[in-house]
This record gives sequence, C-alpha cells and structure tokens, in this order.
Amino acid sequence: MVTIFADRMENTRKSFIREILKVTQQPEIISFAGGLPNSALFPAEELAAAAAKVMSEDAANVLQYSTTEGYLPLREFIARRYLEKNGLEISPSEILITNGSQQSLDLIAKVFLNKGDNVVIEIPGYLGAIQSFSIFEPEFLEVPLLDDGIDIDILDKTLSESDAKLFYTVPTFQNPSGITYSQEKRVGAARILEKHRVVCVEDNAYGELRFAGEDVPTIRNYLENTILMGSFSKIIAPGLRLGWICANSPIMEKLLIAKQAADLHSNYLSQRIICQYLMDNDIDEHILKIKDAYGSRRDYMVDMMARYFPEGISYTKPEGGMFVWVTLPEGVSSMDLFDLAIKENVAFVPGSPFYTTEGAGDNTLRLNFSNSDPDEIEEGIRRLAVCMKKLTS
Amino acid sequence: MVTIFADRMENTRKSFIREILKVTQQPEIISFAGGLPNSALFPAEELAAAAAKVMSEDAANVLQYSTTEGYLPLREFIARRYLEKNGLEISPSEILITNGSQQSLDLIAKVFLNKGDNVVIEIPGYLGAIQSFSIFEPEFLEVPLLDDGIDIDILDKTLSESDAKLFYTVPTFQNPSGITYSQEKRVGAARILEKHRVVCVEDNAYGELRFAGEDVPTIRNYLENTILMGSFSKIIAPGLRLGWICANSPIMEKLLIAKQAADLHSNYLSQRIICQYLMDNDIDEHILKIKDAYGSRRDYMVDMMARYFPEGISYTKPEGGMFVWVTLPEGVSSMDLFDLAIKENVAFVPGSPFYTTEGAGDNTLRLNFSNSDPDEIEEGIRRLAVCMKKLTS
Repeated sequence: MVTIFADRMENTRKSFIREILKVTQQPEIISFAGGLPNSALFPAEELAAAAAKVMSEDAANVLQYSTTEGYLPLREFIARRYLEKNGLEISPSEILITNGSQQSLDLIAKVFLNKGDNVVIEIPGYLGAIQSFSIFEPEFLEVPLLDDGIDIDILDKTLSESDAKLFYTVPTFQNPSGITYSQEKRVGAARILEKHRVVCVEDNAYGELRFAGEDVPTIRNYLENTILMGSFSKIIAPGLRLGWICANSPIMEKLLIAKQAADLHSNYLSQRIICQYLMDNDIDEHILKIKDAYGSRRDYMVDMMARYFPEGISYTKPEGGMFVWVTLPEGVSSMDLFDLAIKENVAFVPGSPFYTTEGAGDNTLRLNFSNSDPDEIEEGIRRLAVCMKKLTS
Repeated sequence: MVTIFADRMENTRKSFIREILKVTQQPEIISFAGGLPNSALFPAEELAAAAAKVMSEDAANVLQYSTTEGYLPLREFIARRYLEKNGLEISPSEILITNGSQQSLDLIAKVFLNKGDNVVIEIPGYLGAIQSFSIFEPEFLEVPLLDDGIDIDILDKTLSESDAKLFYTVPTFQNPSGITYSQEKRVGAARILEKHRVVCVEDNAYGELRFAGEDVPTIRNYLENTILMGSFSKIIAPGLRLGWICANSPIMEKLLIAKQAADLHSNYLSQRIICQYLMDNDIDEHILKIKDAYGSRRDYMVDMMARYFPEGISYTKPEGGMFVWVTLPEGVSSMDLFDLAIKENVAFVPGSPFYTTEGAGDNTLRLNFSNSDPDEIEEGIRRLAVCMKKLTS
C-alpha cells in the first residue's frame, strides 16, 4: 500500500481542541473546553417551522443545486443588517455564503497564500485560523495582544520588516482571549495596514454577542481593504454550518472560483431555512436572550474565579463572546494543570495551541462559559482552584 | 487597493458549465446543458417528514456542532449498503461524510497533490474534478476513453513514463461521456494501477442509476488501494450537499485533518435528515422510480436523435446516469453549434471544457436527459438537428 501525501500535510495536525473534546465528552466531566454555543438557546421551534415552510412551499427548488454565491435574499438580509448595525455599505454581490467561518478561512487562505507567504496573526490567536492557513504553508508572524487590542508598534515593525499579505484578526471578543480592540486600536491598526498595503481579514463571529460595554465600529469601517467574515453559528445554530465572507469584487471573483471548486455551493436547504427564520422572526430579540444568558454566566464565572482562585492568577473579563483567558504564574504549566484537572473531572483548553511558537503560552488557558450552567460553573471553578493550589504551592 | 493572489488562482477559471447555465436559465430555452437531477423525483414529502422528526425529537443536538467524521448511523448505513450491494467490507471508520462529491475531490487533491504532481484523468473527463484538482496545480496526463472504458495500453504506457500519484475515474455512467467500463476494463485498470502503485480515485456518483444492462463490480472490488467516492445528490437530492469518501485508515487520517481545516464537519441537520429518511423509507424503491424515469428519457432522446440527426453524427447509448455524448464530424465545431443553437433556444455543453488540452474535443458535446420532459426532448433534439444540418451541409 503506497500513499504519498502532499508536503502540506506534513505540517498539519489534528485539531488539539477537537481531540480534547473527545476526552471531555463523558457526562461526569464539567467541561469549559469546548467552544459550543448553549444548545438550550437554539431557536429550535422557529427553525423547525421555517424548515416545514420552505419544504412545503418550494421543495423542488430547496432540494436542487443552487448558485455558488448563495441565496440572494439571504445575502440581501446580511447587506441590510450591515448598513443598519454597522453603517457599512456592502452590496449583496460582495457577499459569499460559506459553510461557516472555518470554510471562509480555508477559501481566503486558498486564494491568497503561496507557500512561505507571510501572514500576521494575533498571539494568542484563533486555532481554527492557524489550522486552515497552515494547509497552505505560510510563515506566521506573531503580534501580541494587549488588553485593548493588538500591539500597534509591534504590528508596524512586523509589517515593515516583512512582506505580509494578510493580517488575521478577531477584534471583538477574541477567541481565545476574550479581548476586544478599543476604537483607538481599530483606527491604529487600520492606519498601519493601509500604510503597508496589507489586507485585513476581520473575523467577526462573536461581534453580536456583547453583554457589557459599548459597541465599537468594525475595522472594515476604517479600512476598505478588509475581508469581513460573519457567521450564523453563534447567533442561530452551528449545526446548519453557515457563515459568509464580504469582500470587494476582485477578491470575490477569486473566492467564487475557489468556492465552486471546493463544493459548488453551501447547503441550500439550510440557507433557505435560515432565511425563512430571519423573515419570520426578530433576530435581535433572539440575540438579546443569548446575550442575557451568556452575560450572567460570564459574571458568575468571574465571581467564582475571584472567590476560589489562588493569588497570582489573572484573567480577562470579556465584554461579550464565549471565553475567559486565564494566565497562571510564570513557569506554571497549564498542561500540568490539565492533567490534574481531568482527574478531578473538569476540563479546559491549555493555551499553547493558540501560539505558533513551541513553548509559548505554556502558562495560559481558555475557559468557555457559554455552555455550562451556574452550578457547573461554581463546582468546576472550585475544582480547578484546588488543582491550581496543588501546582502553585 | 492591493490584492496579491496565490499562484494557484492563475490557472483556474470559473466553471464554464456554471457560466453556461446562467445563460440557459431563461424559461424559453430548452436546456440539455445542466447536470441536474429531475426535481419532480425528489422525495420531498418524505424528506420534510424526516426533517420534522429530527427537529422535534433531537433539536438540541441536530443544531449543535458535531464530529468531523460525520453522523455515525449514516456512515453505518453506507457501510452496510456497500456490503449488500457491492460485496465490499468497509468499516464506518473508513467513511468520511463530505459536502458532496465536489468537496470529496477538493479534500483528496489537498491531501495528495503537490504542485507539478502527475494526475491521470480520463479524456473526456469530469470537469468538476479538473477544476478541483487544478487549484493544487498538478500536471494532468490524459488517457482516452474507448466505448468500454479506459484505454488500458495507453494507461500502462502513461504510468510507465510518469510518476503519477492518482488516477481519477468515473467508471460507471461517466460524466460527460455516459460510458461504463466493462468488467474486463475494471480488472485491467486495477492490475495496471497495482503494478505502478498508483492510487485509484473512483467516483461513483451515478453508479446506482442503472436502467439497462447488468451491474458490474466497482474498481474497489479489484483494487484495495482505491479511494471510493459516493453521493446522495443523484439518488436523494443535491441541495442537501452530502456525499462521502471511503479510504483506508492512513489516507482517512489525512482526510480528516483536511476536513477539519476546511469546515469542521458537514452540515449536521442534513446528515440527520438523510439518515432519518433512509431509516423510514425504502431507498431502493425510490431509486427504482428515478431509474424508470431516466431510462425512458434516455430511450426517448436516443430515439429522437436517430430520427432527426443528420448522417455522420455519433453518440453514446448509456446504460445509466444522466448524459449522452455526441460526436460531430471531424472539423465541425460544437462551439459554432452552440452559437446557432442558442438562437434557436436550445442549449447543451460543448465538449472542449472536458479536455485539458486546448483545442481537443472541439467536435464533441454533452446532452443531459434527466431534467427534460419528453416533449422538450423531441423539440430540443429537432431544433438541434436543424442547426447541425446548417453546419454540416
């Protein structure tokens, strides 16, 4: 049996997170490891009604092949919403419906990246993006996140010393850190990217989930040369696998070619169900429910951390999204903590996979708060604190 | 505005067929151009019932993120069916659910192909495969199809003179030619591929749609080193975008990494709907309906071609699938025929896009019979014959 794989597969591993998730799916484990939206909040009845409606009214079309760009009324909805919520004038023809943000990343990487091309990422950075991009064998350049967003000086220096094509960022409720760029940081990043003529890939998967603080404009508001990504996974449901990319027409032309080659078009039934759901329901009302639930869970997790965690452990207090980022004292390994915690039936994601440099981020970890109930949060944080004390004492 | 695309995008164009389809979607045009299953035959009520059932019984899971491999009961169904129908022992762990065959091709190409690697394809060959593979910049080596399958001698010679990694084939009711490999050709191809240690990629999207002749084993029955592809698009519905790849475990491991990076997992709602549909209905009974309908359409189209076409025009008489392949007299261009035909409101796909060499296949064309009614078939073929006579006289 001879199988000779492409070089690109040498550098890519299975997602560490997905492997962890397999371990942590036993019911006795309290898991802060996943990045799952809370399934109790899915608009299940409304989606069932939307599915029944499109199937009864238009099955012959709903079940047939469709256009690569995606269902036009759905793209029109997204365009209208950008205008209303973000003051962005985006034409439906500048929107491509994808199978969620992960495919958006794959298509963008495919269209832009030659082997060895420089891509600038945030550190810590979103693992899914690192994984998608890695398939196309770029060189990653890391720019650290500060509490209010990217380190502008290092971004400028990094772009000066390289020939980067793309800057990938999750500026709002970042995964994994929970950090949100301040308006100053957005303007600053846009100015630097403009100066160096680097395309910004702005992943806004969590942007609608703000439960504290004030809305800030997207980087796209300050930099036209931005590819803006969105997703229905966090505001409706991820099992339907639908997201989108907004890009100007020269980029969109290439993305459409890549999308055709990748899978012709996104699941049409799901596009029609989501569009019907959006026509028949008030999505803002639904998002409000999610924000209330996630906001109170974040509050509770942060309260429990303040109560139980030993001294010398710091953590972010995100204004939205799904994650808290924890920093252990220097020299304390979150991998060691993970081994102890699993024995106590509590799980999280160690921080090192969110760094592309071996050994970096060893003392960090990510906690998800969207998918646990308050009693699980208290008990999980309590157990974690016990493990921390064992390690740090 | 600076955008610097990857080299791989230089060689890829939008699908010619999808561009043609846009032209031919006006209602006054009789189109034999598409590759669409007949939407009147979709099991719409049964799928609507399946959707209602999974949503009412298990919405919290159906709408949540799921596993990269795909829904286990669906993979078990596919494995059981291979055993029953093809005598193939394939474990569910050797099956990956994809967004239809097009994504299967993208993932296989991603996992195997370095720039410049040799890939052997049939000529004429499936355009979607050429498009997917092209993204990864291989060199295509063409081996001609004869009436009963690949030219074994040229296959042997081509593999001897190259260092090919993959042989891509649609051995049953091929797209575009409608040709089916004889059993001898399957055995012969398997032997040659084994000898040269080349992986066979066997695309069996149409294999269940036999309306004449006798079933033949898959190439996978004769060659273990085969990646076997299947699809629900032609036997259930393409809008659900679901297909699969069967591969041994070293290959599957790489495919899973590529699938994770590409989009995490295939649409889970659609997987659950199709699985529920398969549990609650007799798929063989449904496939029988499709075969009856397509068989009578093929008969009618071939009858009409015999009645109306001028002398010197040959065509295949496929035993299944969706396409007839027409060869015009040497020197007569199907592009010229297309221009005349469009004026007469009848459309088809000229043959040259199915060849990778410029100018090859100029006198060939593909006709789809699955998606036209008998009266459209007669009228369309009559008009086409008038255009042919203008060109050949």
